[in-house]
Amino acid sequence: MSDRIRVGIAGASGYAGGELLRLLMGHPEVEVVHLSAQSHAGERLSSVFPHLPDWGILEKTENVISWDDLDVLFCALPAGESSRIVKQLAKPRPMIIDLGPDYRFKDPEEFRRIYRMDHGDPESLSESTYGLVEWNRTEIRKSRVIGSPGCFPTGALLAILPFAKEGIMGEGPVIVDGKSGVSGAGRGLSLETHFPEIAEGMKAYKPLVHRHAPEMERAIATLSEQKNEIVFVPHLIPVNRGLISTVYLPAQSGVSLSVIEEVLTGYAKNNGFVRVLDRIPNSSEVRGTNRIDLHATVGKGMIVVMTAIDNLVKGAAGQGVQAMNLMMGIGEDTGLPKWSNYP
Amino acid sequence: MSDRIRVGIAGASGYAGGELLRLLMGHPEVEVVHLSAQSHAGERLSSVFPHLPDWGILEKTENVISWDDLDVLFCALPAGESSRIVKQLAKPRPMIIDLGPDYRFKDPEEFRRIYRMDHGDPESLSESTYGLVEWNRTEIRKSRVIGSPGCFPTGALLAILPFAKEGIMGEGPVIVDGKSGVSGAGRGLSLETHFPEIAEGMKAYKPLVHRHAPEMERAIATLSEQKNEIVFVPHLIPVNRGLISTVYLPAQSGVSLSVIEEVLTGYAKNNGFVRVLDRIPNSSEVRGTNRIDLHATVGKGMIVVMTAIDNLVKGAAGQGVQAMNLMMGIGEDTGLPKWSNYP
Amino acid sequence: MSDRIRVGIAGASGYAGGELLRLLMGHPEVEVVHLSAQSHAGERLSSVFPHLPDWGILEKTENVISWDDLDVLFCALPAGESSRIVKQLAKPRPMIIDLGPDYRFKDPEEFRRIYRMDHGDPESLSESTYGLVEWNRTEIRKSRVIGSPGCFPTGALLAILPFAKEGIMGEGPVIVDGKSGVSGAGRGLSLETHFPEIAEGMKAYKPLVHRHAPEMERAIATLSEQKNEIVFVPHLIPVNRGLISTVYLPAQSGVSLSVIEEVLTGYAKNNGFVRVLDRIPNSSEVRGTNRIDLHATVGKGMIVVMTAIDNLVKGAAGQGVQAMNLMMGIGEDTGLPKWSNYP
Amino acid sequence: MSDRIRVGIAGASGYAGGELLRLLMGHPEVEVVHLSAQSHAGERLSSVFPHLPDWGILEKTENVISWDDLDVLFCALPAGESSRIVKQLAKPRPMIIDLGPDYRFKDPEEFRRIYRMDHGDPESLSESTYGLVEWNRTEIRKSRVIGSPGCFPTGALLAILPFAKEGIMGEGPVIVDGKSGVSGAGRGLSLETHFPEIAEGMKAYKPLVHRHAPEMERAIATLSEQKNEIVFVPHLIPVNRGLISTVYLPAQSGVSLSVIEEVLTGYAKNNGFVRVLDRIPNSSEVRGTNRIDLHATVGKGMIVVMTAIDNLVKGAAGQGVQAMNLMMGIGEDTGLPKWSNYP
Repeated sequence: MSDRIRVGIAGASGYAGGELLRLLMGHPEVEVVHLSAQSHAGERLSSVFPHLPDWGILEKTENVISWDDLDVLFCALPAGESSRIVKQLAKPRPMIIDLGPDYRFKDPEEFRRIYRMDHGDPESLSESTYGLVEWNRTEIRKSRVIGSPGCFPTGALLAILPFAKEGIMGEGPVIVDGKSGVSGAGRGLSLETHFPEIAEGMKAYKPLVHRHAPEMERAIATLSEQKNEIVFVPHLIPVNRGLISTVYLPAQSGVSLSVIEEVLTGYAKNNGFVRVLDRIPNSSEVRGTNRIDLHATVGKGMIVVMTAIDNLVKGAAGQGVQAMNLMMGIGEDTGLPKWSNYP
Repeated sequence: MSDRIRVGIAGASGYAGGELLRLLMGHPEVEVVHLSAQSHAGERLSSVFPHLPDWGILEKTENVISWDDLDVLFCALPAGESSRIVKQLAKPRPMIIDLGPDYRFKDPEEFRRIYRMDHGDPESLSESTYGLVEWNRTEIRKSRVIGSPGCFPTGALLAILPFAKEGIMGEGPVIVDGKSGVSGAGRGLSLETHFPEIAEGMKAYKPLVHRHAPEMERAIATLSEQKNEIVFVPHLIPVNRGLISTVYLPAQSGVSLSVIEEVLTGYAKNNGFVRVLDRIPNSSEVRGTNRIDLHATVGKGMIVVMTAIDNLVKGAAGQGVQAMNLMMGIGEDTGLPKWSNYP
Repeated sequence: MSDRIRVGIAGASGYAGGELLRLLMGHPEVEVVHLSAQSHAGERLSSVFPHLPDWGILEKTENVISWDDLDVLFCALPAGESSRIVKQLAKPRPMIIDLGPDYRFKDPEEFRRIYRMDHGDPESLSESTYGLVEWNRTEIRKSRVIGSPGCFPTGALLAILPFAKEGIMGEGPVIVDGKSGVSGAGRGLSLETHFPEIAEGMKAYKPLVHRHAPEMERAIATLSEQKNEIVFVPHLIPVNRGLISTVYLPAQSGVSLSVIEEVLTGYAKNNGFVRVLDRIPNSSEVRGTNRIDLHATVGKGMIVVMTAIDNLVKGAAGQGVQAMNLMMGIGEDTGLPKWSNYP
Repeated sequence: MSDRIRVGIAGASGYAGGELLRLLMGHPEVEVVHLSAQSHAGERLSSVFPHLPDWGILEKTENVISWDDLDVLFCALPAGESSRIVKQLAKPRPMIIDLGPDYRFKDPEEFRRIYRMDHGDPESLSESTYGLVEWNRTEIRKSRVIGSPGCFPTGALLAILPFAKEGIMGEGPVIVDGKSGVSGAGRGLSLETHFPEIAEGMKAYKPLVHRHAPEMERAIATLSEQKNEIVFVPHLIPVNRGLISTVYLPAQSGVSLSVIEEVLTGYAKNNGFVRVLDRIPNSSEVRGTNRIDLHATVGKGMIVVMTAIDNLVKGAAGQGVQAMNLMMGIGEDTGLPKWSNYP
């Protein structure tokens, strides 16, 4: 037991935190030693998350700065919160895996422009790494601070990058039409996510102004040589979990279906959690897993890529654990479900 | 009573047929005198549709050709069926309002190319009219044969045409990302629409190859001067009713939000069922009504228009009744709900 | 217009208030002249209820006491609120139809025991009437203060009373197992009704201690000669609307199915909103209507009665309007939908 | 690998079969060596169940009789099918775990009366055992043929038996009001389980005449000394998975809450998959797990017990695997999830 990776979670009472707990409590190399929450501080885990075994009492998030016995600290906090806390940690700090946006941008000015607040820990940004595992393994292995990607960027970038890297993507805007289940809006109460207001409904939100668009643009520029603009419209769909993305890429002229299939075959071969399908992905088939299912077609000058992920697993907690596995030098898929229950 | 419009429905046991019945049974100027079905022929209406009052026995669809006492025949039948039947009607025929695709194209070759079958009544095509009321009132008033638009074309064309007509739409493909509730797939059984297979799931279907794309292209060319290609991907969403469309239009350079708002204000003023919102449309707000809710924004060279309709009302039965009202010279909104229950 | 019934609603921004508005705005004899809300006071109706037409500004609920131009005041307020307000109205007061519990009990002590608060207007209780129309028409016609029944009591009492009145119900407890859609929990935010917490879940709540049990017991004792105890367990089900009740009545020995059918046939004949089915009621078939669908069977010494209502219509707003129609001497079903959309 | 338990599944393409596969493919002591299906015979597993890894081709169910290399044969077949097949197996037969009803009754006459068909393998009934693990461990360990309980009996019996065994249950009928998700109705198509027909609806079915009532009565008589009649009404609820039971037991006079809690504390201590809660069970908290969550209260002469299970796990596949573990002498909880994802 003493050789296990000692892990803490700051912000354990939200949905991403709960999913981290499910994964980390079942992870064979991990021991969960600290948990914090804000409004739920002082409560037992089993009352905060009725689907989990009893574990003990959640501490206040302010306590995180006194946790000096951790190998890894996961943060599942609102924008601006994790950098504020990380900055106060005594050195040597544990490895940081932040599911929020604080460490996704190298440039504090870029963060400020997008999130309209000062960055709380600008010095650490130079050593931070964007945690999109499938496209950044080498950097992640060497890093000690991970900015784990947002759920929509995960679903979209894993659709865009194989084509961007192979140079068969043309110029012009990439349109990302995303559809997310309601757990993606978090556990905080709002009229918008009150059951009767969204059940049997569906709608777009924040068209063209969602903060995940500049995150995608930054990642494409960093991880490939492309510089396409992203036109992004997310939608809220009345399911619990699941995120599908329909991505419309300008195609280089002459790109055929067989070229696309060749690109995707190599892609899946090198990435255990990428499954390329000859049919359309359905979000219910990836529920509870760290997989991304993917299908693409081409026509009218466009490559259309459709992906499905579980927004709380591959789109949040699972991707963070996948990065941790790399950083700790253990099997990338350790403790990560690839298959789940259906229906 | 004897002055009422005498109406029959061929294909009354599907969801569009059931919605036609709800509307026509409550329509102050209409008397429903004949109903037909195929597998449900011989059953009482109240056993086929438990939400409707008892009316009597459904006849076989073959009987339609002997119905000689109708003013209007609505058809809610699979592709190819209504034209086969209409051709056999004795003349003078009743007015025809076909909710299926048979009379949506003037050119029988175009129909054959898209639906991969010969047209059953090519002679009538020359006198047929596309029933998109908001953009075709003059023609519909004079017509006796209406090809009522499909649900996806309705949601998309009502988003595209105001900008196409005003000449502020640029060149290049228009991307239509549609999301439909499951009633849009009809009442026929399939594994895909078996509750556990689609509840808590979502997925695209027929990307780039859905038959509603050429219908949209034809309508844009006919009803405006534009000739943009349509890149269309529909999605299946686990709600009963509702269809939202997110339409990405190339913008002429310099098009601002105020130009867009000016276009839309005029649009709503002239069309009682068009409601322009300063927030995002939600499909649950139009459920049961003949309204289309619409919002638009602009950025990154694109006008993004979001619309919400009830796929069975504005997307099918309601639009058909709206056309009938025009053809019969009565108030366009007679018998058509503009508001409904919520949540 | 000046001859219309002038109506106000105190508490117009909740779900019952919104449904009242839908019904009253479409009611041919009614003019809605005042609306109040608490946290939404000062907002336009169209922003509070996006499915309704624009009407104007909601006043503060405190204003109700200055509304002196009403024929009828509907209250859709939490327990204790409506009596507090009604007491302050200048006399002659308008007719009061309270959808909350304040006027459901004649004895202020009984109210205090159940709701754990003093009654705000005990003097009016002697003239108040329980608004269960099907079983109390004579009294309602003469009354000026109506305590409209709760949603669960409506579904259960309309199942129990036909058998209680005919004397074929035996002694012993009546078990009422109720299942309600989430709109029954109101529009106020709570973790329990946050979409991801209840979608794909179901559970009982307040077993044996829900306040609707003593309301049912009081109504049975008042409206029949029976005195059975009620064992009541409500359940929360992830649908928007709908309330089904499965009621287990002890049967007098020898009660056969044909006796039951005879009782029910007479029941439906005298009550236009009661539909007796030879199959099981489904809540989706009554959605949006003021109907109650009912089916019963017998065996093992028990009569099992199953009913379905729309909790916001027959279970709240519709039943209130039905009582108003009686009080105003107009047709009982005026302005009340009997059929609705499906699915 | 060669020491693993060699398992086959007859009827692997339904929902219970799919859940068996999920559990058995992840079971550390099991190797899945044969799978059969009927209409899906000849297809690859990955096309039949898109959430599972590729495994190979499903054989025809008739082939089962040639499978002579199995340690355990699971059957997930309609009534009458498994006994017909088991009878034809060469001896020594593998252990049989039948998720269907064929081996739930010792008396072939009782089976015939309930299922209205002759039993296909009456000789084996004498050695068959009812697989309700928590109440039948000793017998199951010695048995080679298991009739695994139905989903509703599992949820109800685990609520009733602790009180029946302790002698604090009075005489008179036990009322079982069950609510099941739609996966409980199987993967076969029907209008009743077509998405739009059941989404946003709820209803009872087969009140008093469902075949699970005599199964419950038989089990109570066999596993305790009580002989209460069961009044059973199941309901269909629009969720995928989950089954809650509200059970109304006549209480011996003087039974208090503390007596009930004492009974339940001992119960949970001896049964790792039984969790006793001080709040109401919600089906979403047990989804994907083999747990049963339970809460009880008392009043008005009745003990009300509320349970929640996953109908496909504890109510079918998981319970079968739990029995297999006992029969093979390995840890009862091997390969069985106790916790799962939420929401």
